[in-house]
Order: sequence, then C-alpha cells, then structure tokens
Amino acid sequence: MAVKSKKIYLDEKEMPRSWYNIQADMPNKPKPPLHPGTHQPVGPDDLAPLFPMELIKQEVSTEKYIEIPEEVFDIYKIWRPTPLVRAEALEKALDTPAKIYYKNESVSYAGSHKPNTAVAQAYYNYKEGIKRITTETGAGQWGSALSFATQHFGIELKVFMVKVSFEQKPYRKFMMNTWNADVVPSPSELTDSGKKILAQYPDSPGSLGIAISEAVEMAAKDPDTRYSLGSVLNHVLMHQTIIGEEALVQMQKAEAEADVVIGCFGGGSNFAGIAFPFVRQNLSNGKNIQIIAAEPASCPKLTRGRFQYDFGDTVGLTPLIAMYTLGHNFVPAKIHAGGLRYHGAGSIVSQLLKDKLIEAQSVKQLETFEAGVLFSRTEGIIPAPETCHAIAVAIREAQKAKEEGKEKTILFNLSGHGMIDLAAYDHYFSGKLENHEVTDEEITRSLDELKIGV
Amino acid sequence: MAVKSKKIYLDEKEMPRSWYNIQADMPNKPKPPLHPGTHQPVGPDDLAPLFPMELIKQEVSTEKYIEIPEEVFDIYKIWRPTPLVRAEALEKALDTPAKIYYKNESVSYAGSHKPNTAVAQAYYNYKEGIKRITTETGAGQWGSALSFATQHFGIELKVFMVKVSFEQKPYRKFMMNTWNADVVPSPSELTDSGKKILAQYPDSPGSLGIAISEAVEMAAKDPDTRYSLGSVLNHVLMHQTIIGEEALVQMQKAEAEADVVIGCFGGGSNFAGIAFPFVRQNLSNGKNIQIIAAEPASCPKLTRGRFQYDFGDTVGLTPLIAMYTLGHNFVPAKIHAGGLRYHGAGSIVSQLLKDKLIEAQSVKQLETFEAGVLFSRTEGIIPAPETCHAIAVAIREAQKAKEEGKEKTILFNLSGHGMIDLAAYDHYFSGKLENHEVTDEEITRSLDELKIGV
Repeated sequence: MAVKSKKIYLDEKEMPRSWYNIQADMPNKPKPPLHPGTHQPVGPDDLAPLFPMELIKQEVSTEKYIEIPEEVFDIYKIWRPTPLVRAEALEKALDTPAKIYYKNESVSYAGSHKPNTAVAQAYYNYKEGIKRITTETGAGQWGSALSFATQHFGIELKVFMVKVSFEQKPYRKFMMNTWNADVVPSPSELTDSGKKILAQYPDSPGSLGIAISEAVEMAAKDPDTRYSLGSVLNHVLMHQTIIGEEALVQMQKAEAEADVVIGCFGGGSNFAGIAFPFVRQNLSNGKNIQIIAAEPASCPKLTRGRFQYDFGDTVGLTPLIAMYTLGHNFVPAKIHAGGLRYHGAGSIVSQLLKDKLIEAQSVKQLETFEAGVLFSRTEGIIPAPETCHAIAVAIREAQKAKEEGKEKTILFNLSGHGMIDLAAYDHYFSGKLENHEVTDEEITRSLDELKIGV
Repeated sequence: MAVKSKKIYLDEKEMPRSWYNIQADMPNKPKPPLHPGTHQPVGPDDLAPLFPMELIKQEVSTEKYIEIPEEVFDIYKIWRPTPLVRAEALEKALDTPAKIYYKNESVSYAGSHKPNTAVAQAYYNYKEGIKRITTETGAGQWGSALSFATQHFGIELKVFMVKVSFEQKPYRKFMMNTWNADVVPSPSELTDSGKKILAQYPDSPGSLGIAISEAVEMAAKDPDTRYSLGSVLNHVLMHQTIIGEEALVQMQKAEAEADVVIGCFGGGSNFAGIAFPFVRQNLSNGKNIQIIAAEPASCPKLTRGRFQYDFGDTVGLTPLIAMYTLGHNFVPAKIHAGGLRYHGAGSIVSQLLKDKLIEAQSVKQLETFEAGVLFSRTEGIIPAPETCHAIAVAIREAQKAKEEGKEKTILFNLSGHGMIDLAAYDHYFSGKLENHEVTDEEITRSLDELKIGV
C-alpha cells in the first residue's frame, strides 16, 4: 500500500536556530511600559531586581532574530521539533473541503508549549548566577513547565500556586514536586503580601494576582532570586516563536500553504508562538494569511476590551502596559480554561490587533468542549480546555469553507493536552458546564473603574 | 553548532508492515491451552463465543510474519512510529560508559503501548461485524486504550473497572468516557457473576479476576458481543512486536547495536513487544543479546514462580495455560504498579524463560521509584510506575557497565507515562511507600494450593 504521511516530523538538525522578534517588523512599535508610580517609561534598572539583564534586553530588542543558545537548544531536543499533523480524521468528520493541520505542542512532557520559554528563562538566569527563581501558577501548567526547566540548571524554584487550585488540582502539584520544585499555596505566610491578605481573609482561596504579588515580593527582596512570568511579556512571546518557525518549515515539507492560522488566547504566548512567523509572511513576503486569536466569550478582551494603559496584575504593582483590557479588576467567570482567564493582552499583540494585522473571535464554553470531544474522538488527543478554543475556531473556519465550497488550509496550535484536566470533560458530559457570556454593562463598569490617568 | 540527534524518528513510510510471530521460531513451541473442564487442548470452537476468528487463528498461527492491515496501519499513524531516544542526560547523571536508549511508547494518546493491540483487536472484531465488546480494566490503562480503539470503528465498549480503582482513579474513567466507552464499577448488577459477589459481599472492592468474569460472561451471552484482553494471550503479544520491529530499524539508523534489551513485566505485552524481535536476532541472526524482563519483587512469578498449568483468572473460568505462576489465588501486595500485579506469565514468555532464551530480574518498589524520579529529572518524562521497573533494571545494567569499565548498549521500553499516576510519586516523596517482598513460605503455600491435575 502507498503510505500517505499523517505527521510531518523535522529532524533535530532541521530545527530553526533563532527566535523571531516581531518588534523588528512592526509598522507601529508597541508603546513602552510605564512606571506605576511616575508614569515614565520603565528602564532596565527598574526591572533588574526581577529579571536577568539578558531577558530585559530581549524585552526591548529590535533585532529581527535572536539566536537560540546551544544549551537551550539541547534541552529543546528532549521534545522538539514537535510534529505537524494533518487532521484528516477531523476533516472527514466535518465533511469539509478544508485541509486542517495542527502543530502538536502537547508532546512536551509538561504537556504544553510552556517549556519553550521556561527553558530559555531558566538558562539566562543560570548564566547570570541566579540560584533561586520564584513564580506564580494558577492551574499549574506554567509552574510545571518552569519546574521541568529550572531543575535542569540546578536552580531552586518556589511556586506560589493559587490556593484553590493547590487543593483541587493535586496532580499538577505532584508533577512540580517530581521535578524538584517547592510548591506553596497562595496566599501564604512567607510574604508580607500573603500575610496581609490572610490577616484580612483567613479563608482566602487566592488568586493569580495575589500569587504574582507574593512571587514578585520574594524575588525583589533577595539579590540571588529572580522572578519569572509565563506569558504576556515580549521576551516570553518571542521564545514561543520556535513553534511557528518550525511550522513554516513543516508546511513547506507538506507542500501546503496556510490560509488561516489560529491560536487560543490567554496572555498571548501560544498564540504569538504559532502566529508571529506567519504575520512576518504577511508583512515581509506579500502573503495574505488570516491570523485569528481565539478567546473565551467570558473573558473577551480582544473582541470587546478597550485599548489603553492598564496594570498587568490585580493589585497594581506591575508597570502599566498599553493593551486591550477588560480592566485589571475584571473577574472572569470560572470557566475550565483557567489559562485564558486574564484581563489583558500584552503590548505587542494589542498593537497588532489595533493595526488590523491580526483578528480575534470569541467562543462560548460549550462550543469549545464540543470541539474538544470531536477532536479527541477523531484525532485521538484529548486537548486542554484552553486549546479547545483554537479547535472550535478551526472547526468554524472549516465549516465556512464547506458552506462556501472553497478549498482552504487551516493551521492551528494544539497548545496542550488535557490529561490533568479530565474532570472538565466529566463536567461537560454530565451537563454541569455553562456558557458564560459577559454583558456590555459588566465590561463598561470594569473599564470605567480604571482611573489610570495615561 | 553541530547537532547531535537525541531522538531517532522514523518516517511513517519506514514503519514496519508486519507483526512478528515468535511461535514460528521457537525451538520448543508453547504448550497448548487446556479446557478447564476436560483438560483437553482447546479448539477454535471453544474460543469462538469470545473472540473473532481471525484473532483465534493468530493465537495458534505459526506464520513468521503477519501483515498489519491497512486500516490498522492508518490508525497506528496517529502516534506511530514512536521515537527511539538516546538517554544522554540519564547516562551523564549515572556517569556510566553505557549508552542507554529507550523506545518511547508513552507518546500514544492513551499514554502507553496498549493501543498497539487495542486497535488491531477492534479492527478484527469490526471486520466480523461485531457491534459490542466487553473488557475489564484495573487501573485503567487497558480500558482507555481499547476505548480509543473501538470508537474508531464504531464499536460500543463496556468496560468493567475494578470498583476500588473506579473510585480512586476518576481520571482514567473520564478518559474512557471522552472516548465514548461505558465504564461500570465491578462487581456490578449487570451480570450473574457480579450479582453473586454482591450478594455475598455487598462492599466488595472488586478485583481483576471478578471483572474478567463479568466481561467474559456478558460477551458469552450475546452473539453480537465479543471479549477483549489486553495482555497474556499470544495474539496480543504479537501485535505489540511493532515496538521492537521499529526499534530494530531505529537502532540501525543510530548506528547502535543493543547488548541488553529490557521491558517491565506484568502479563507480558510490553516486554514481548520490545523483546521478541531481538530474540529473533539471537535465534536467527547469531546475535547474543541479553533479554531481561523486569518484574516487581512483590509479584515475582518469573524469578520465583513454578512452571506448570494454571488458570489465567482468579475464579478458574479460563483455559489452563502452561506458565510460570505464583498460583491463581496469589494476592500480590498493593504496589502502585498495578499493571504488574498478575500471578502468571503467559505461555510463550514462560517457554522462552524455561529455555533460557530470556531472563528475569525482580525489583523492589522503592528502587523503582528512585529510578523513575532520576529519569524524570534527567530525561523529562515522568514514567508510569510499571515502567519504572524497566528503568531500574536499565540503571542496574548501566552501573554494572561502570563497575566493569565496559562499553555496553542498553535498550529499554518506556511503556507508559505517569501523568495519571502522579499520586504514586507523592506517596513516594512523603515516605508512604514500602518495599514488599514476598516470602518463600507465601509462594510455596500459594503454589501448593493448586491442585490442577495436569
């Protein structure tokens, strides 16, 4: 029999050697972050207590390509290059003329794309002699990726995990422990921020905002400790572009050209990872690829937020960032896609959206799980609830192709698997999930509360 | 920089097209299974109510190679060929002159090697027009693999899951549900066997033996329903040889020759999968490869059992099988490697061991987790507790190579990941795990109870 390839692998020798820095190509550069107190652009010195200098440089770099260090490349080889897969079984189930490809980032042993930046960040900290890193994690994807990364470089990791997740998602905690990280439920007694919250609300379930405050405070107080963030920042998004760079080579091998590229959207890291190299194709190589961010209808900052300066955290300690936001006090409904429950979008993605170089669609929770179940029953992988948003939009586009009777090539980022999120599927099957859609009034109220002054 | 490959991929076009049937090459053929009542060799008619005829033929076939049907091959492509990986980080941590390779079967979306036979079995049932399949599952690995497989062919699946696991391991149940299977805690009210147990012990936690009885009974009573088993039987082991056949091609690509091949051992399926093609190298191609089965010290049928006819199940309903056994009433300690808690070894592996064509080592629980943690911190993958047995023996062999100052190439089967077994690691870290070693008296007592008469 003739073998038609389903998966397009790259040899390790074919793995791209550089990350792509989209700042070099943007017609309008992202606006600078502002100091929360002075409202002046923040400089390297403001960030030095939190990040190693090399990452601060990357944050503002306008070099088009930044070489992946050999030590990072060597650890990437544990799971990279990741396969590009033709979703033929899904196409067949949809009876669509569209070709659907997905980049399978779920094959990393932390289960998502997150290690792409975790390894890079751990490396640059290691190079500057940093002994300890702090971070926060919600559902645990980021914390486990960073645990995997830091232990490779002998760096101690302290993870502040939102208390309610710490209690509800023990598997993520066990994973981090196995990779040698110390996981603390937040709010904790280890920081002033934590103590203050606990004094006021002894039963606080915690929040990502509080966990960030604790992690930042601990890093700022110790000269040997730095802080690490898993999304939103420019350097984080840049490290993720290895996804799209590989996909470009693989699409070429498959003799396919993407018409549509899709990623789900929380803080922007997996979306940027798949999308930015394709935005470059539009900007520099005369292509006309549609680039779509898929966000939850319950947290629609891209489709219904406002472009303005806002804080990255709930408490208001981070620099002010020019971005599409729902307001830093916005509390999204408790959907299972915890990784997409973030109020803002980061400055690069926001500028690209403002300049119409990318677009966005929002999806309600039930549609995302319907998509995830169909995907798992055709392609085999049970996707993470976050990833289900990208799949849902890919299915929409495939159905549109069918209605229009058009051939079309769709590429989406399969950012993570759902092995640790299986309870979400159980809730879906037992009819316990809801469609949360936020009202215009809620968004306006949250945005009107912002009195940033810039 | 020069890129040294860590992973050896095969293109789908390079995937072997046949399973290897070791029965063709065995100097002493396995003894025939006997009818539990008459003690006469069982014929196809005895098995026809339970299995499709094509699988019954494979069970006794002496053809050396059996071609993989195109429909099975197409589904294999969802995750196969699996990577062969050089465990350089582990080698470095052990400071050993040995080269260590592992075949990564954990990349299947059910998380283990089990889909290799699940897909084949589902296919042959589908070809014979079977509408429903029943099976049992303990911890859930087999049940999830078969769920993944049957839904591809539109076959309904009923899984009898040992009640204590059903309650303790909800994630496996959710996975099976997502792949469209109906999962029932066993003992259940759906069968006479289940009802009988419940009448006597309303709080019975269930056992694999009871679950087998329920699944077999339900299949035997309905002409449109068949039964499926995930290990032990000859055809099951044969389907797994795709693992070793791929590994042979990949080792050649890596310009490496295995001196030692290792698989963990429960019912024999992952061990046979990696080992049998290398046994062929010894039998037909003049090689002298050491083939080692790694079993738990708490269930040491290969190292300390007796070769004799015994039942495959606890209740005594299956054919009698000539095998190394601890006695079908033997109750192994509750180690976390649930997949290795089986009293017997299947007839082919037992005959190979008797003829000294393979060997076995037993490993205590703490050594296995120590190995698993070292592996996860070097190679990134958190292995299933069963797989940790193979890793422990690989580490022993690597350490022996160091002591002897000898180069040596070790290959082991990474049969599954531990994402759904992370609680076991938590127990290990919190000092709750024990080393269970069975005493000679216990084994003798269990074996002396057997009064089979053949």
